[in-house]
Amino acid sequence: NFREEFLALHPYDQAQFYEKVGPDIRQIIYQYLSPKEMADIFEAIELDDDEYKGILEEMDTTYAAQMIAAMYTDDAVDVLNELDKDQITHFLKIMDKDSAQDIKELLYYAEYTAGSIMTTEYVAIPENSTVRSAMTILRNAAPDAETIYYIFVVDDTNHLTGVISLRDLIIAEEDTLIRQIMNDRVVSINVTDDQEAVAQIMKDYNFLAVPVINSKNEMLGIITVDDIIDVIDEEASDDYSKLAGVSDMVTFDKSPFAAAKKRLPWLVVLLFLGMLTANLVDLFTGTLEKVAILAAFIPLIGGTSGNSGTQALAVAVRGIATGDVEEESKMKLLLREAITGIITGVVCGAIAFGIVFFWKHMWLLGVLVGTAICCSIVVATIAGSFIPLLMHRLKIDPAVASGPFITTLNDITSILIYLGIATMFISKLM
Amino acid sequence: NFREEFLALHPYDQAQFYEKVGPDIRQIIYQYLSPKEMADIFEAIELDDDEYKGILEEMDTTYAAQMIAAMYTDDAVDVLNELDKDQITHFLKIMDKDSAQDIKELLYYAEYTAGSIMTTEYVAIPENSTVRSAMTILRNAAPDAETIYYIFVVDDTNHLTGVISLRDLIIAEEDTLIRQIMNDRVVSINVTDDQEAVAQIMKDYNFLAVPVINSKNEMLGIITVDDIIDVIDEEASDDYSKLAGVSDMVTFDKSPFAAAKKRLPWLVVLLFLGMLTANLVDLFTGTLEKVAILAAFIPLIGGTSGNSGTQALAVAVRGIATGDVEEESKMKLLLREAITGIITGVVCGAIAFGIVFFWKHMWLLGVLVGTAICCSIVVATIAGSFIPLLMHRLKIDPAVASGPFITTLNDITSILIYLGIATMFISKLM
Ligand SMILES: [Mg+2]
Ligand SMILES: [Mg+2]
Ligand SMILES: [Mg+2]
Ligand SMILES: [Mg+2]
Ligand SMILES: [Mg+2]
Ligand SMILES: [Mg+2]
Ligand SMILES: [Mg+2]
Ligand SMILES: [Mg+2]
Ligand SMILES: [Mg+2]
Ligand SMILES: [Mg+2]
Ligand SMILES: [Mg+2]
Ligand SMILES: [Mg+2]
Ligand SMILES: [Mg+2]
Repeated sequence: NFREEFLALHPYDQAQFYEKVGPDIRQIIYQYLSPKEMADIFEAIELDDDEYKGILEEMDTTYAAQMIAAMYTDDAVDVLNELDKDQITHFLKIMDKDSAQDIKELLYYAEYTAGSIMTTEYVAIPENSTVRSAMTILRNAAPDAETIYYIFVVDDTNHLTGVISLRDLIIAEEDTLIRQIMNDRVVSINVTDDQEAVAQIMKDYNFLAVPVINSKNEMLGIITVDDIIDVIDEEASDDYSKLAGVSDMVTFDKSPFAAAKKRLPWLVVLLFLGMLTANLVDLFTGTLEKVAILAAFIPLIGGTSGNSGTQALAVAVRGIATGDVEEESKMKLLLREAITGIITGVVCGAIAFGIVFFWKHMWLLGVLVGTAICCSIVVATIAGSFIPLLMHRLKIDPAVASGPFITTLNDITSILIYLGIATMFISKLM
Repeated sequence: NFREEFLALHPYDQAQFYEKVGPDIRQIIYQYLSPKEMADIFEAIELDDDEYKGILEEMDTTYAAQMIAAMYTDDAVDVLNELDKDQITHFLKIMDKDSAQDIKELLYYAEYTAGSIMTTEYVAIPENSTVRSAMTILRNAAPDAETIYYIFVVDDTNHLTGVISLRDLIIAEEDTLIRQIMNDRVVSINVTDDQEAVAQIMKDYNFLAVPVINSKNEMLGIITVDDIIDVIDEEASDDYSKLAGVSDMVTFDKSPFAAAKKRLPWLVVLLFLGMLTANLVDLFTGTLEKVAILAAFIPLIGGTSGNSGTQALAVAVRGIATGDVEEESKMKLLLREAITGIITGVVCGAIAFGIVFFWKHMWLLGVLVGTAICCSIVVATIAGSFIPLLMHRLKIDPAVASGPFITTLNDITSILIYLGIATMFISKLM
């Protein structure tokens, strides 16, 4: 029978099926499945943000409210956040009080904070329970808790005092007190911490979940590893998009208009910046008219300095993201980048000189191009690392200083260096 | 006392301390800690690949061999892979036979395959055990297994037939047969699968571990979520580096020479490619001499087409990495990108026309720049998505078609388009 066959699938596979079928089949699914069963699908679903509204409107309102109530709180909040304010209020009003209360508490944490990704379905036990009573609590909580593999220990006033894993619990003597075997050096997360900091801790410590507390050390929820994987993925997409100059690549576009909307703002801003470059080159028209071959090397020099600037930028942004940058002083990093710039600049400059010399047999032009490339690379490398470090210091996301911006900036400096030197030695070049 | 204080720390914190101190303190640590305790540190350590050799040589050889034997097999293999062949043989000879055997089996799986990240410390039980006997097996395995939260069910000849979570086990009746409550639709990984495919599955299904099998469905090991997080991080760094034109940014460089070594190959290759651009512009010297202002717009047009090419490339590479591209036909994606290119091209072309018209009061130059930008964007967008899709089809990592290559390629096509059109209408422009 359809119902049993379908429920034997993993919720992810159920969700894949649900996403593929049309509204008619979805109505049949709603008839066959309980709100709780539908909640499992909704926890695994991957819809675009703007699709939730339509989907929920095609369900019976009470059914939808019961489904949201049955979801893990973190996922329920994610769904609700896609709806209008009055829809949220309505759903919260018609669902059971406990669920509504849990959801309300999580609904207003700012995006990208620990609070926005935590859930409230964790297992907490008092310090002076025995292993036996802890196991009973655990067995009762098992069907509903998001994880039962970590059990959090709290005092009478809900302060987090310890943690014990199910692994340690099942090998302990039944009469032992939890207080005696728990780990009292709990690593915890503050509810206002950035989600990237949470990811870093879970990655370092290999946790399956971390407890989230407020400033008074009261336990508020947990963050589980599956949601941290999504955070890592999202943050990687985010940095990658910005390096490429596309706003938000987390959702894959299915329409060219949506795609153009994400790309145009960058292209247009960069177009205006690029007009500055044109203006700058135009200042050197006199020089270019006298020695027309100079123009031939403008894209090369701009390109090379753009490439080395992007490299330096990427290393700094990634270093900041992984925390490697924190481990040493910023001055030391800038100094290292400057030396890297000099090494790469000298090597590339020498190669460029060689090519121009053997190709055009003009040694002075070779010296000019080589010197310009060398200087542009040094400037581009230092700028490429300085800018993200500065932004990090000013608490701006360094990834915003994207590749295209650095490239355009370096176009400008490299043209200034190249045509500036050329103009100084114009009489020799003619 | 030092030993107890130190061992009370989480292994990650122990490892952080160990990494920071000098060789003298490390010698003291080796005296205080057993090889097994040292193994916990080594599992959490983050050394550069070339540092392992030196560190192991400063330990007593027997101590080092016992430490490696006590590590989880996947981590032991990672350490051994940094050593010389005869060092590996020597360590395997002096460690206990069981560990040596486990390690040998994992040592030769190719990098980036499931085999290279799996470990052998999992819990397997026969199909017709009872819940009670399964729990006993589990309690005995708990101190050594990498995870006890998933228990894998195998038949007499080690074929994987099911899986049961500890969550389900602890709420089951003690006399129930495992066969009756296990999940027999196990999602498993083939040992030769790519690590990125494994990551995708763990992400989709929210697993804490997946079983790894060979082509005969025999169980070989498991891959755990903490190692998958490292894979996701590594692959994201890899894609990000390539987009920026830096080979391998997984380890953060501490010397400018190491940094220059990773950046120079790209810069030099791109320098040669850039010389082609110079050569190309040089072909149009006649045109540029007649209308010198044309040169002013070369960086702008090249830059804009480079930017749109990088955007299209990034969307395609990320779409391939996340599997979104698989869900639709490649032709459809290319068509969508072409339309996106036309939309962004027309908008940017119109804006460029407007700026040149109002700034230079030369409507024909405006038409020329606008048309060139529009055409270059269309070509760049199509090329930017076509190239990674083609590489994916040819089973080459699409991330190799990095940002700088696309940028340089688009420099060439945009100059050809721009100066080509200009040459055609040169009499009107003069
Ligand atoms: Mg609920
Ligand atoms: Mg959320
Ligand atoms: Mg962030
Ligand atoms: Mg880790
Ligand atoms: Mg989730
Ligand atoms: Mg969750
Ligand atoms: Mg970020
Ligand atoms: Mg071993
Ligand atoms: Mg490995
Ligand atoms: Mg997931
Ligand atoms: Mg491992
Ligand atoms: Mg590991
Ligand atoms: Mg990859």
